[in-house]
Order: sequence, then structure tokens, then C-alpha cells
Amino acid sequence: MKKRPIKIAIIGTGWMGKVHLEAIRRLGYVEAVAIIASSQAKAQQFADEWGVPYATADYQGVLSDRAIQAIHVCVPNELHFRMVTDSLNAGKHVVCEKPLASTIEQGETLVRHAAATGLANCCFFNVRSYPHVRHMRSLVQAGELGELWALQGTYSQDWLFHDTDWNWRIDSGESRSFADIGSHWCDLAEFITGHRIASVCADLHTVHRTRKKPNNSIETFAGKISKPQEYIEVPVKSEDFANLIFRMENGAHGTMTVSQISAGRKNRVFIELFGSKRGMAWNAEQPDQLWIGERDEPNQILIKDPSMMDPAIREFADFPGGHSEGFDDTFKQTARQFYKTVQDRNAEVNYPTFVDGLRQLKVLEAVISSSRTRAWVDVKD
Amino acid sequence: MKKRPIKIAIIGTGWMGKVHLEAIRRLGYVEAVAIIASSQAKAQQFADEWGVPYATADYQGVLSDRAIQAIHVCVPNELHFRMVTDSLNAGKHVVCEKPLASTIEQGETLVRHAAATGLANCCFFNVRSYPHVRHMRSLVQAGELGELWALQGTYSQDWLFHDTDWNWRIDSGESRSFADIGSHWCDLAEFITGHRIASVCADLHTVHRTRKKPNNSIETFAGKISKPQEYIEVPVKSEDFANLIFRMENGAHGTMTVSQISAGRKNRVFIELFGSKRGMAWNAEQPDQLWIGERDEPNQILIKDPSMMDPAIREFADFPGGHSEGFDDTFKQTARQFYKTVQDRNAEVNYPTFVDGLRQLKVLEAVISSSRTRAWVDVKD
Amino acid sequence: MKKRPIKIAIIGTGWMGKVHLEAIRRLGYVEAVAIIASSQAKAQQFADEWGVPYATADYQGVLSDRAIQAIHVCVPNELHFRMVTDSLNAGKHVVCEKPLASTIEQGETLVRHAAATGLANCCFFNVRSYPHVRHMRSLVQAGELGELWALQGTYSQDWLFHDTDWNWRIDSGESRSFADIGSHWCDLAEFITGHRIASVCADLHTVHRTRKKPNNSIETFAGKISKPQEYIEVPVKSEDFANLIFRMENGAHGTMTVSQISAGRKNRVFIELFGSKRGMAWNAEQPDQLWIGERDEPNQILIKDPSMMDPAIREFADFPGGHSEGFDDTFKQTARQFYKTVQDRNAEVNYPTFVDGLRQLKVLEAVISSSRTRAWVDVKD
Amino acid sequence: MKKRPIKIAIIGTGWMGKVHLEAIRRLGYVEAVAIIASSQAKAQQFADEWGVPYATADYQGVLSDRAIQAIHVCVPNELHFRMVTDSLNAGKHVVCEKPLASTIEQGETLVRHAAATGLANCCFFNVRSYPHVRHMRSLVQAGELGELWALQGTYSQDWLFHDTDWNWRIDSGESRSFADIGSHWCDLAEFITGHRIASVCADLHTVHRTRKKPNNSIETFAGKISKPQEYIEVPVKSEDFANLIFRMENGAHGTMTVSQISAGRKNRVFIELFGSKRGMAWNAEQPDQLWIGERDEPNQILIKDPSMMDPAIREFADFPGGHSEGFDDTFKQTARQFYKTVQDRNAEVNYPTFVDGLRQLKVLEAVISSSRTRAWVDVKD
Repeated sequence: MKKRPIKIAIIGTGWMGKVHLEAIRRLGYVEAVAIIASSQAKAQQFADEWGVPYATADYQGVLSDRAIQAIHVCVPNELHFRMVTDSLNAGKHVVCEKPLASTIEQGETLVRHAAATGLANCCFFNVRSYPHVRHMRSLVQAGELGELWALQGTYSQDWLFHDTDWNWRIDSGESRSFADIGSHWCDLAEFITGHRIASVCADLHTVHRTRKKPNNSIETFAGKISKPQEYIEVPVKSEDFANLIFRMENGAHGTMTVSQISAGRKNRVFIELFGSKRGMAWNAEQPDQLWIGERDEPNQILIKDPSMMDPAIREFADFPGGHSEGFDDTFKQTARQFYKTVQDRNAEVNYPTFVDGLRQLKVLEAVISSSRTRAWVDVKD
Repeated sequence: MKKRPIKIAIIGTGWMGKVHLEAIRRLGYVEAVAIIASSQAKAQQFADEWGVPYATADYQGVLSDRAIQAIHVCVPNELHFRMVTDSLNAGKHVVCEKPLASTIEQGETLVRHAAATGLANCCFFNVRSYPHVRHMRSLVQAGELGELWALQGTYSQDWLFHDTDWNWRIDSGESRSFADIGSHWCDLAEFITGHRIASVCADLHTVHRTRKKPNNSIETFAGKISKPQEYIEVPVKSEDFANLIFRMENGAHGTMTVSQISAGRKNRVFIELFGSKRGMAWNAEQPDQLWIGERDEPNQILIKDPSMMDPAIREFADFPGGHSEGFDDTFKQTARQFYKTVQDRNAEVNYPTFVDGLRQLKVLEAVISSSRTRAWVDVKD
Repeated sequence: MKKRPIKIAIIGTGWMGKVHLEAIRRLGYVEAVAIIASSQAKAQQFADEWGVPYATADYQGVLSDRAIQAIHVCVPNELHFRMVTDSLNAGKHVVCEKPLASTIEQGETLVRHAAATGLANCCFFNVRSYPHVRHMRSLVQAGELGELWALQGTYSQDWLFHDTDWNWRIDSGESRSFADIGSHWCDLAEFITGHRIASVCADLHTVHRTRKKPNNSIETFAGKISKPQEYIEVPVKSEDFANLIFRMENGAHGTMTVSQISAGRKNRVFIELFGSKRGMAWNAEQPDQLWIGERDEPNQILIKDPSMMDPAIREFADFPGGHSEGFDDTFKQTARQFYKTVQDRNAEVNYPTFVDGLRQLKVLEAVISSSRTRAWVDVKD
Repeated sequence: MKKRPIKIAIIGTGWMGKVHLEAIRRLGYVEAVAIIASSQAKAQQFADEWGVPYATADYQGVLSDRAIQAIHVCVPNELHFRMVTDSLNAGKHVVCEKPLASTIEQGETLVRHAAATGLANCCFFNVRSYPHVRHMRSLVQAGELGELWALQGTYSQDWLFHDTDWNWRIDSGESRSFADIGSHWCDLAEFITGHRIASVCADLHTVHRTRKKPNNSIETFAGKISKPQEYIEVPVKSEDFANLIFRMENGAHGTMTVSQISAGRKNRVFIELFGSKRGMAWNAEQPDQLWIGERDEPNQILIKDPSMMDPAIREFADFPGGHSEGFDDTFKQTARQFYKTVQDRNAEVNYPTFVDGLRQLKVLEAVISSSRTRAWVDVKD
């Protein structure tokens, strides 16, 4: 079936802006006609380098262009609320990078707003779109895990390991590592298991209480390569490490760790599930490998292979077994699902929405509150 | 720097056609304006599904379109020679899937032809474009391996494991598995080490001497999913397994195995190098992991990370450490290098050319000859 | 130097009794002259099968034999206190399986008692004797980890996965999984890092609140093979799963999970350490592999190799690199260290003593208290 | 059942002598009453260190001691024939380290001699006794592999990587690496599959054509630690690297590599089998892990677990799942099987005998002949 072309704009020229751009281009019927940055110069540079027809610092101007149907919001967190609100007001479908907003109240407002408009909305928890994440969820739904008993895991990185590592994210709010990557893990856990985190006991920790902020701005992760020369020593309040134990609504017990200071762990999104029938474990650093644990038979290692996936979710794997699919492919898959619903407003919503974004703001608030009070805290419903 | 838009056409609507299409779209300045298939219907279906403006079965017509600068030849092997020849005659830059041609003579003709025209030409050994493949090559060039002593490996798959597995490739020539995937491995070995295979002793083997050919056509790999109902039993002469020992020009000794019948091996392109300073090993099923072997220190596992790559080849990794890059990304990277030279005919040729395609035809001929005579055979220079 | 022969007795004919027996026999100068069981028949059967000269149910009789210098206490936990006390009173050196005793008070009594006698005493935390555990500790002591920031891990098994799985350990006290295997992990963490766990927040959980107890007795782990036919359904109070977050005295933050119901995890003693210089990770299921994590260089995988170990601890590895050493070898190494000090009472005490056994009773008490009160609890000093 | 005590002697005080000593001591009813070395001093030092009652350089004297029932021959290869012959003549059961002898003729003589005496005889291919090796063989015998199609592998080490690495083995015959470790691999392949290697095409290679021989003697592997100070430069003819392709009697095709110069490979005995039903792969560096490859289901990783082994071979695993068993345990298991047949001359011979030792001499001769002639050579029957 031939798809109608869809024109979109991307706000944000950081690495997420670029990854979103490539992702939608792979779909074939979605065209990024405008790129928006905080300055005309930055926008133009991006447009020239990546071949976007129009560059601007005036996002309101773009919102007023009726030819544009959707907006990708790939900017620092504190701008999400305003830009998403404006985009919805302009009648645009919206893709927003996580976290959806800075507070639960903002998140609730956006959820209501989006619902009222009837526009497609996505909070971009891309990890959901790894083929093996979908596969694990299918297995759970088919009862292959049995009753969920326990889950464990970590989201560990090392790109903030040195006190000379810096990024805009460090300045960006009360919580950093948990907001930034911990929320990915919690969304993943709830998405795969179909159960919600009910109560948490957290211990947030700031290893580097001061950091050396460079005088120029630094792209996420880029600090590893381009070493800045001049610094300002600044105090840091937000955590770069967190431990969490939790209980889920069904009674399952969980543990997880979030770290951006763990030398050698590059982007280890690791999750283990144990149920009354078997176990499962997956690590985003080797996303094509799925471990399935058995008590009375050999364990399994499933190399991602569409022929062994539930037909209902087979479309999340584009390549045959052994042909690895990576981080960027999750962006393609998420975008593919999103634009399916833009094409056909009756299509199934098979991607994370603002509701999911709001959900993780609530988990995050409980985590912060628990760490501050050193007590178990229930997640608000 | 702003890049001039480049219009191209793709011949072939199989899975390679689709992978090429996605790859070039990610570049941002290369536009696939036409898709060509063996029938108008097939072309149209592809165009509708993947959003290509023009669909046709008339490739000569496309070649006569002066707006089109490059052609991607993604069709069965026996058509390569004619289509590449015609494309060169039409003044098009050419990307050809491997193998370049059916015979050494054809390959030599194409190399001469391309050289005479001065057009950009690429024989698409995509495996070269994995970040860690480039990294291994850089390490070798920097002397980190020392003198190459030995190399080993395999290219093993299982998608022709059953005698009911079928694909057009089975019919397509004197050698199958070696021509199809063994040539990838040999190109990889020569590319990384900078040394040529000088002589070979091979043992080609056909496990399934008859296969059940379905009455309908089957996409590569697709047999795992769509089980055909009606078969014709046909004799098969080309090998589905091969063993090889070889010597390289520098005196290094090598071994490798090619298999399409090894249950559980999905796309295992595994290569190990051992030199006078250290060893290296890499497996395309987990392409982000590179093993480095040491005698007097701990071994290393390098997770792909641009910050630890030679700056000269850092552009082959688009994502930070731990953010996996996969099979499809090698197509993007290869295409990126190719179109750099289309943009700027003075740019460095940092991709496999027809010369490399011809080279592997020569290796293949020696392998076939060796297996037939059960003797060591020198590779023609 | 020639070693004087040493005669010893082992109390306990379970699998630990047998593992201790083999271990001391490998030393060459330690002879097990008596085996003691709860019945003469059990003792005799063991003696016949494993070649021990004397079998008895009368352990007091053995204690009165002046030729016997040391006793190995390998019996259910609740018997430890009495048998160790009696052995010390009889002037025997004592090796006691963990846990040292049932309460902190008992533990303190044993520590004082042993100190007063001046006899060699060992609480058998065998995990300390893996070559790579010693190696990690050496690296930490040499400053190679830098300041310890965080540690994570698990001790997970699946041999109590089914509600039909049974063992005497299930009946044996307030805590089961944590007492049994969690204490191994905590001892390991404190041993490697040289820091103590200062405060804990724990969540103990009993997945199977009733279990089907067989009418006959079952050796640890043996339930997987010999399926009993008749059961009594009994309520179970002790945990089979536990989550823990903790802080160490130096300010490091930790997380760990204990499980005996995790399908597919056979004996996963996994520990990860992250410090200001690098990270380390080790898993007892593959004890010869040590992961070392780096921020700015490739990670390392060290295959156990005496030539790469600190000479001071090289004796903990008996075989060259790649020649795997296993679970049983840790018993040999621990026993070797113990009997060195029996031979030479001035030799360095390079094994876990009753002091270490007492220490883990204190950690355990804090864990139980924390889980009961759902609050952070300090570990008593 | 109570076992009669058996007295034995060990000839050889190298590391194999020590490993054999520990192994037999673990059995409980086998006592090493004498150790024999090339000098009284060496023998006495070993006896003192490891607690052997009697030390001597006079092996004939020991052979004349009627109390001694069995001899372990753990000396350099060229002494095997004479010492085994003398031991058989003295009516002793014999355990001989591989290779059995220096020539096929010697091997045939020993096989006939042993058969004529009716004495128990063992050529110590210890690798057969890894639990997973037995498990693979059981799976093959049960038809779980299907028809064997292909096998691949390597035996790679790095302890002769430097030209300053030295050992008596380097001087010891026409072939070195293949004789020493390649024969282990070939025995393993034939043992697991139940098929014989029928013809070979080999390429032996000597990377270091001269080596620096220290003036003092060096224990196997020990060169990594104790660096000698004075050398003599000596030419080396025997290979340190070998490639092999082969065919088995059933038509299966194989490849393997032997190396003692591969940096980072410590003792990689790796074998992969592919059959008409599935594949299997195993690596002695992680002996508790068995990979099972499937075409239409997830692959498997079986952690060694007696409860999942064929009851007939379960006795080869002494510990529960996840409790690793290592290199030394294969010596215990092989010795256990051997002494079962010494105890009971009607017991099943479940260990490698002189017949197996002879077999590998024949394979070795074909390998050497093939490499010399650069041609395929049939293995003599």
C-alpha cells in the first residue's frame, strides 16, 4: 500500500536530533523539511551537513507551517513542556524525547492536552523497540515466564566517570542519572512485565560533588574525544549513581542500579526476569543475544531471528538471524510505529506515549523522595 | 559543507535492494529516484511500499536518464556483468553487490572498463565497514599486531541447513557458499592484514546433493518463515560447506571454513589474527566486541567506542561506546564513503572497488581448482 | 621442607564432608583418620566408599584421641556451636563450615574461646580462595581500583526453584538464603575491598511459603536428581530471595541480590566493583575469567594465569593459564593455608577465621532487622 | 563397597607428576608410595614437598617391589617406550602420559605387550574426562547430533610465543605441537563423534626457527615466570603451528589448527560439531559451558549439571550445576576410571588405553607425511 508523504520538523541539533533524522529518513515516506536550533547558525550548519532543506531558530514559525504534520522535540529536558505544548496547540503530532517533562504536573497537563487534541504523541523510550525486548514481552504475555517473581538489572555507563566529564544534562534538574537513564530501565521493566512498580527504596549518590565545567558547550558523550582546555569548578547536586530496591504491584521484588561513573560499562542496559517457569536476561550492549534460564533443561541463548519471533512482533526485526541490529534501529522501529498511526489514526498504538512518559515521572518522584527520606515510598498512581 | 543532491537508481527488489535503499537515504543528500525490477509489478510494489518515486522494469530507460548519476546493482550474480557494463557505458557511477562477475575474464573487463571511464565503482564488501574491522586494520597498519604469523576463521550460517531450504543462489554457479560468503571472509582477511592469499588447498563439499526446490520463488533467508508447499527435487552441484588452508604472501598460514549448513550459526563471520606482538579476534554476530590477545598481560575486550579509535577511521562509528551498530550500518558507512567520491572525484577511495571484486574472483578460482584437483594451487596474480 | 604428618577427623558425611576430605588429601601430609556421622551406619558407609580408616557416631570419643590435631565441622548449622566448642575444649584446631554459629552471641563466644586457646580456627568462606578473588584483592590493595565508589552483585541459584525442592537448610533458622549464600557474598565483598558494610536496607522474600517436604532426607542439591515420592506440605518462613542496598564504611554504595529460585542461575556468585580508577567483575560460574573495566582504554579479560598474578598470592593458582581451576580447588587452597598454620603456628593466617564468621553473623542480623522494620539499619561493630 | 588399598609409584617429578599424584590421592584408596626421578635429589625434593614416603632414582628397583601394583609414567616422551615396557614386564598396570611412544612401531609393540599381559593400561588423554566431553559423546551416541557433517576447532596456546620460551618438549622429536596438543584434539574428535579421521591434508609451520635455549632446565609453562639469564641460540625444526583439513570415515569434513604461538590463547581446546540435527561447541578454557546450536529453535548453553547428564556418565561430574570443575578434575576422573578396572579386572574400560595412544601415533604420522609432501594422505588403519 502506498503511503502518503508526511512532512515533519525536528527541534534540536544534538546527537538525538541527528539520530531521529536518520531514523525517519529510513521510512521512505516521512520527510524532515525543517531543522530548528537555538541559533540560526547552528541550525544552518546541521542543515548543510545533513541535507535538511530549511534551517531556522524560529520554531514558532515552523509550527505555523500547515504543511508540517509532526514535530520531534530533541532538546534539553527543561524545554520539553513548552515546546510540546506549543506543538500540540499548533495541531502537530509530537514525538518527545524522554523525560516527557520536568514535573508530574507538567506531565499530566501534556497527557490531557494530547488526549484533548487527539493528536499522535510519543515519549521516545526507544529501548522498547529492540527486537529482543519485544520478544521478551511476547514471551511474558504468552505465559512463558510464568508468574513474575523477581527482576534485577542495571543501567550503567562511564561517560561521566571523570570529574572533567561534562554535559548540559548535569545542570538539568533535581535528578540526573535516574531521570536520564534510570527511567529507561524502569519503563523497560514495566513494559516487558506488564506490571507496575508499586513502591521503592532508593539511595541516590553523587560521586563527583564538584565537576569541572568547560567554558564551551559539549555534546553528550563527546567529552571523551574533544578535551576542553578551560574549566570552571562547579558544585553538582544531582546524582551520578543510584541503587534501588522495589516491589511491583503483583508482589514481585526488584533491584536495580543506575550509574554513569562505572568504568568499562559503556551503555549496559541489563535486565533479568525470574518467574515461576523460567528466567530471561538481556543486555543492550549485545542486543541480539537473549538468555533464557531453565531449571531442568539447558539454558538458551536466542540470537535474534525473525523466524523465531512471535509473528505479531516480527516486524521489529528487519534482518535475518545473526545480522545484528543496533541502537539506531530502535529509533527507526519506534518512528515506524509512530508514523503508522499518523498515516492511519485508527492504527494500533504500538509505541510509548505521553502516558508512559508521565508514568516514569511518577516513578522518578518516588525514587527521589525515598532517597531523601531514606524510607520506602509508594509510587503515586 | 553543503552537499549537492545526487540522484540514483537501484536495480533489484530483493532484500539487498531494500538494504541499499535505506542506507543511501540515511546520507541525506542521495535520493533514490527509481527502482528497477524484472517486472513492472514487482518494481511498483517495492516503490509503493518503500516510497520510491518511479518504478520500472526497463533498466535501459533509467540508464538513459541523465539526471541519474549512480546505479546500485543488487540482482542475481549472473546479471552483474551485463548491467554493470551497461551502466558504465551510460556514464553512471556503479555500486555492484558481490561477486563482481561470474568469471575472472568478466571481472578483468569490468575493472578495465571502469578505469577507462574514470567513474566511481564499488564492489560491495560491506563487512569492511564495521567499525571494529576498520579498527583492526588500523592496528595492523600501526604495527600493533607485529608480523602476521597466522589467521583462522569461519563464515558459518544455517539458513540452508534443511534440504527444503532453497534460494536462487543455489542455482547460480559453480561455487555457491564460497562465492557467496567465503569471498567476504577472504576479502576481510586481505583487507585487515594488508597481505594477499598466495596459495590455497581447499575441500569443497555438498552436504545436500539434492534439494527440494519450491515452485514459487523465495527471498534469501525467507525460507525460514514462509514454508512453501510444493517442491521439485533437484540435484545440487555447488557446495554448501568448504574447508580451506592457505598461505599468504608474507608467509602467514591460514585456515578457514565456510558453511551454510551449521545449525545454530546464524551469520558467524569470525576471524582471528595472530602476530608477533599480539592476537585479535572478531565475530560479526557481536560486531561491537573486539578481542585482543596478549601473552604477558591480560587480554582485552574493546567495546566499540569512537573515542578509542584511530581518528582517521573514527567516522566509521556513528554512536558512542556501548550503543551498538549493526549489519545495516555497514551499508550506510560503505555508501557514505562511495558518495563522498561521487561528490568529490578527488576524495580518497575508502571503499572496496571493482579491483577488490576481481581479486576475490581469482581467489575463488584457485579454491575451486584446488578442491577439484585435491592439491595446493597458487592464486593468480 | 618436609612437612610433619597431621591427623584429622571430619564430622559430617554430607557433600561438604566429602569435599573437605578430598581437599585435605590433596595436601599430602594431612590424613583424615576418622569420619563421624549422626549414626554409625552413615559413618561406615562413607568410610567404606571414600576409604577413611575409622567410622563412628561418637564424636566425643574422637575428640579424646590425642593423635588427632584438627576437626572439620561439616554438619547442619545448629550443631556448629556445640561441636566447635567441644573441639576447642579438646584442644583441637577447628575448621567450621559457615555460618559459624546461630547467633551473634554464640559467635562472640567462639571467637573468644578460640583466641583463649590459641588454636587455629577457620570459618570456611571458600570463595575467598579462587585465584581471581585473591587477584582482585591484590589489585585493590595495590591501589589499582582507586577509591571504591560502588559495588553490585548477586548470589543466585535455582536448586530451590520448585516447591518440591527440599533440603535440611530450609528448616534451619530465621534466615536461609541470606545466611547460606548471602553471607558468602558479603564476606567476599568485604574481603576484596577491605571495607566493611556499615548499614543495610534489605527486603527478604519467601516465594514459596509452603514447600513439599519429602519423607526421606535429601542431600543438598540432590533433589534435582532423586525425585522423592511422598511429601508433607509444610509452611516455610525463611526467605528464598533477598534484595539489599547498602553503604560501606568508606562511603561506597552497594546493591546485591540473593536468590535460590532463579531458574537458569546455577551458582552465580557475581560481583562488580567500581572505583575511581577502573572497574572489576567476576562470576564464580566462570571463575577463571576476570573482567577489568576501563574508561579510556579497552576493557580487559584476564584468564587466570599465575604468571600475571601478584607473586604474594600466586600460590592460590596451581595450574598455568587456561587450565581451569574450579570450585573444589578453593577447598584445597583454603585447607592448604589452614594447615600451613597448623604446621607452623607462626605462619601468616591467610584464610578466614572465626572473626570473619562472627562478622557475617552481624551483617546477617542487620539484614534481618532491616527487612522486618523496612528501614535502614546499621551493622553492629 | 569397601575398596582394597592399591599402592602405586609415579615416575616423573614435572608438573604432570604432581597432577597425577593429587589426582590419585583424591580417590582415597590409591596410595603413591614411591616417586622416581632422574636423580635422587630431585626425587627427594618432590617427596619432601608433597609427602611421598619413598624417593628414588632407581625405577627398576621400584618395579621389583611386588607391593606396587601400578606405575604412572610422567616423563619426557622418548622414555615412554622403555619405561612402559619395563613396567609391563614387571607385571604392573600402567598409566602413560601421551604420546604413548615415539613411533607407530613402538606403539604397536606396547599395545600387543599390554594385551598379552592382560594388565590395565591407559594412555592419558585426560580431555576425554571433562563432564561436557562425556555429555557430548552421549548426545552423539543417542542420535541427538544426527549424521555428523562437519567439525572444526583448534588447540591454541601461547606459552611458546616468544623465541625465548623454551621447554624440553621443543627438543623432543619430529613433531612437537601436533604431537603434544594436536593429538589431544584428534583423540577428542574421534572420541566424541565415534568416527575416525580417514585422510588429512596438513600444513605444519615453524614460526620460530631458532630459539634461545636457557642453560638451566625449565618446567613446562614455567618460562612465563622464571626468566632465565643465559641462552644458547639453537635451531628448531619441529613445528609450533599447524593447519589441518581432514575427512572422516563417515564422510564428515573437518578443519583444525594447532598453535603454541597464539598470543592470548592460553589453553583453548575448542571443538565444534555440526550434524543433520544440530550443532555443538565446547572450549576447555570454559569447560562448564556447552553450546548447542539449533536451526529452528533458540540455541542452548548448558552449564554442566549432573542432573541434566545421561545417568550413565553422570559420575564424571562430582559437583552440582554452577560449581565449576576444572582441568585437574579430569585427572581425578580418568584415574578413578582406571583404578576401577584395577580393583575389578572385569569392570568396564571407560578410559583411553594404549590402543587409543597408538591410534593418535598413526594420525600424527599421516599429518607429518602430508605436510612434507603437500598432499592429502590417508591415515593407516
